[in-house]
Formats: sequence, C-alpha cells, structure tokens
Amino acid sequence: MKLVKTVAELRKEIALAKRQGLSIGLVPTMGALHAGHASLIEAAAKENDFVVVSVFVNPTQFAPNEDLDAYPRTLAADCVLAEAKGAAVVFAPSPKEMYPSADMTWVEVTGNVTKVLCGRSRPIHFRGVTTVVSKLFNLAQPDRAYFGQKDAQQVEVLKRMVKDLFFPLELRVMPIIREADGLARSSRNTYLSEKEHDAALVLNKSLREAEAAFAAGERDAAKIVAMVTAAIEKEPAAEIDYVELHGLPELTPAVSPLKGTNLLAVAVKFGTTRLIDNVVLEEK
Amino acid sequence: MKLVKTVAELRKEIALAKRQGLSIGLVPTMGALHAGHASLIEAAAKENDFVVVSVFVNPTQFAPNEDLDAYPRTLAADCVLAEAKGAAVVFAPSPKEMYPSADMTWVEVTGNVTKVLCGRSRPIHFRGVTTVVSKLFNLAQPDRAYFGQKDAQQVEVLKRMVKDLFFPLELRVMPIIREADGLARSSRNTYLSEKEHDAALVLNKSLREAEAAFAAGERDAAKIVAMVTAAIEKEPAAEIDYVELHGLPELTPAVSPLKGTNLLAVAVKFGTTRLIDNVVLEEK
Repeated sequence: MKLVKTVAELRKEIALAKRQGLSIGLVPTMGALHAGHASLIEAAAKENDFVVVSVFVNPTQFAPNEDLDAYPRTLAADCVLAEAKGAAVVFAPSPKEMYPSADMTWVEVTGNVTKVLCGRSRPIHFRGVTTVVSKLFNLAQPDRAYFGQKDAQQVEVLKRMVKDLFFPLELRVMPIIREADGLARSSRNTYLSEKEHDAALVLNKSLREAEAAFAAGERDAAKIVAMVTAAIEKEPAAEIDYVELHGLPELTPAVSPLKGTNLLAVAVKFGTTRLIDNVVLEEK
Repeated sequence: MKLVKTVAELRKEIALAKRQGLSIGLVPTMGALHAGHASLIEAAAKENDFVVVSVFVNPTQFAPNEDLDAYPRTLAADCVLAEAKGAAVVFAPSPKEMYPSADMTWVEVTGNVTKVLCGRSRPIHFRGVTTVVSKLFNLAQPDRAYFGQKDAQQVEVLKRMVKDLFFPLELRVMPIIREADGLARSSRNTYLSEKEHDAALVLNKSLREAEAAFAAGERDAAKIVAMVTAAIEKEPAAEIDYVELHGLPELTPAVSPLKGTNLLAVAVKFGTTRLIDNVVLEEK
C-alpha cells in the first residue's frame, strides 16, 4: 500500500494502473476510518483490481460553526486499516493540493434533494461534498466509487450529480454498519460520552419501530414521523434537528398513503455531537 | 463519420475507441461551423486518433433576452465540414439528452475571471458554459479538448475549471481565424447586414492599432483602452459594451506600466448583433 499526498503522485499511480488495464475502485472518506469504511474498502477490493482510499477532511463542506478543527484525524491508523482491507493507495492530500486556486470552482446540485434534511441545517454542506467528490472522480478516474447508506442524502445528491454530469463510473452504495448495540458507525461517535452514546441508541431503536410499523401496514407518513419524534423526545439528552420522511430518489415530500420507496431520516444532537441515521421504507 | 444524437450512443463510440487504445480529441461547438471551427477540428485530427465534434446550442448559457432561438442551426452542413476536416463523430444531442433532470447540477467558476468582461454583461453565461463543457468532458473523456482564442475569456474560465476540478485532459487553444477583411470569424457574423459587417471591421482595426502602440512601447493601460474606445466610437453603427484590459490568467485589473501578459478585449453591438474580439498584449 502506498501513501500518496500530492495530486501529481496520485496521477502517476492512476496512469500506471490504467496502462496496466486495471479496474479502479475509489472510496472517498474523511478518515477516522471505522467498520463502515472498512466495509466500503472491502467491497471495492472485491469488485476492482486497484483500490484508492482518499482521506481528506474537506473544509468546504463544514460551516464556520461546525467541527472542522475537532474532526478526528488518525492517518496512521487509517493506512493500516486501508491496507488490511485491500487498498493499493491511500490519497491524503492537503487542502492546498485539493484547492489550488484562490477562487473556487463549485459543483452544485440544486433542487429538493439538496434543500431538505441536512441541506436545510447545513446549507453549504452538499456543495462542498459534490465539489470535492468531482475532483476525486477526475483524479482517480474510477470504474466504481463507494459510499455508505449512512449518509443517505449524500448518496442521493451524488447519484444526481453522476447522472447530470455524466461521470463515467458506477456509484456503489453499501449498507449501514452498526455497533453491536445498534448505533450507526460514524467517525463522530468518538465525540460521545458514555452517557450520550447510550442515549443515542434511541435513533436505531425508533427507526426499527418505524420499520416494523411500516411492515405491519402503516402508510401514514405523518403518523410514522410522529411515532419516531415521540420516541426520540422521550430521551432527555436528545435534541432533534429533524425527523422527516421523503420520497426517493429526489427527496420530494412524502405523500400518504406511502407508495414506492421513501426515506425516513433523522438528525439529532447529543450534547454537542450531531448524529444522523435513516431507514428506507420500501413497498415490497 | 457518424452522426450521434444520444448520450448512450456516444458512450458506446467512446468506449470502443478507448478499448482500441485511440487518443480522443474533443471539439465542443454550438454548430454553424465556420473556418474558425474548421481550424479546431483540423488541429484535433492532427493530434488525436479519434475526433468528436459536439454540436449543441446550449440553452443554459443564454439569458432570456439573448439569441437562443435565433442562433443559426446548420447541422447538415456542419456534418459535411466536420467530416472533411477529420471528425469521426458529430455529437448533436437534444437539450433533454444533455439536461436529463428537472433540476440542475451546475459547475461554476468564481472569481474575477467570470466577473469582468462578458461575465458582467452576461452574468449566467459562463456558468452555462462550464456546466455543459463538464458534461461533454465526462462523456467524451478526451485526451485533448479544443477551443478558439476568439472566446478569450471562455478559454481562461475553462483553464481554471480544468485546473480546479482536475479534469484529466489537455486544453488546446487555437488562434483567432479572421475573414480576409479582418473580421473575426463568428457564427453570429451571419446576423450582420453588409453595412454592419463593414462597420464591424473597426474592431480588428482598432485592436491592431493597440497592438502596434504596445509594440512601440506604450505601457499605459488607460491610454490603450482610450485609444481603442475612441477608434470604435468614431464608427456611428457601433455601440460599445466594453473595451477593457485585464491581466492574464485571472483577468485581474491591469496595472500600468503593463507587465507580463494582458488581454485587451472588446464587445460591441452592431445593430442587434453583439460581437467580441481581443488581442493578447505580451511583453517579449
């Protein structure tokens, strides 16, 4: 496994892999790799000859009041995990490498898909994500790129970007990986005190209840949202940012009775830590 | 030469060319091909194995008050010229093919480079250009893409986009091609009456005078701009949009005495037809 820190070095590695006719898998991450990332790298290594894991805490997707500086940075451990799971290259550039100009070139997906949920709480977030992922796509030129369903809205935004801009690659989405107690894996889980961690279990628990209600025939969007909201509100340490249900893929308003595929997504603060989780409610 | 109208067909052609190890040249155009485009296609055919000419009058780079509907469309003649100059494929998609979603995904270069000159007169123009060119880059996956120096600001904007988003290609810029009488070739020249055409010769004439003054040692930006402005104002049919001098590559304000490489650019209306022209003033 090679650790590469510059655009020029990465380009050399990719050119070499392309000349050898290798298929390329890209796993874009912000580092602090956990079992969720591990599952993405494993899938990439299974489906591609040459796997690039990028580790870059992207400043343009953080607002000034967010946790850019506090975000965990564990490059040495990330390299060990990436290598163990089959990565050929870890690309860990500086912000200066990724943003070479004084002024920005933005890639921005518009519409409902970037306006609701985290798009409302974090208005500049997805523009930063789509911009940096475009850069990574052009650098790594992957056949397949891997993202986790934990960031369900990000997945929908990137699907739209790939569709609209005709990126020549397949976007692969991998299931949410959870701790044994049900908490969705996130690099931000390390911020949680033990008490907050226990409180945060209400997210998975309430989503499982909603899923069960849906499976039992509940098709009233407002009732499902109210059920999850009530369950989370019972947890005193939880401060709800949103509990919402939207139609996939464009995150259009959910219509009752629910039909097709809908996303039930939550964002909740525990202390200063904001966590997200979701479940797809799909008619079989 | 193959005329291809859908994204799916173009992707097949490109995949085939890539499998054969052919280098790809892309010439993005809005059609109504003239000698300027011919020079781009010729250069592309000389430097690449497989040349794609796109013909697409891109709606997102026209404001509602501009000439989208009137813009000349001459696909049959364009195909004849493209084939004669060495194109393997003419890609002439519908707007629906190029913009598959109800909402937009924009690619936007910010900073001086998109704010001055045409960026001020046509505030949405370059966002439309960079968006459609990104799509074409991702579809054709060219080794080299060809643009004319006639659209000098477009060239600088696209250079910034390629640099910032790391498009894996070389941007090739070809010199302005002029009529025998000096008028820069443009698809919009067909709008001009004979009288307007004659009046428009003042553009090239005044730029040549500025070039001569610069060669003779004039380094005062304001004086050069005043000289060109006065020459154009003597022509009663000319209505100046701008006469400006900016530093390259970022179109920063020109500083007197002029140093390095500067762009002297003009946009002038003759009747309802807005023409642009330019000269690069470069210290030897």
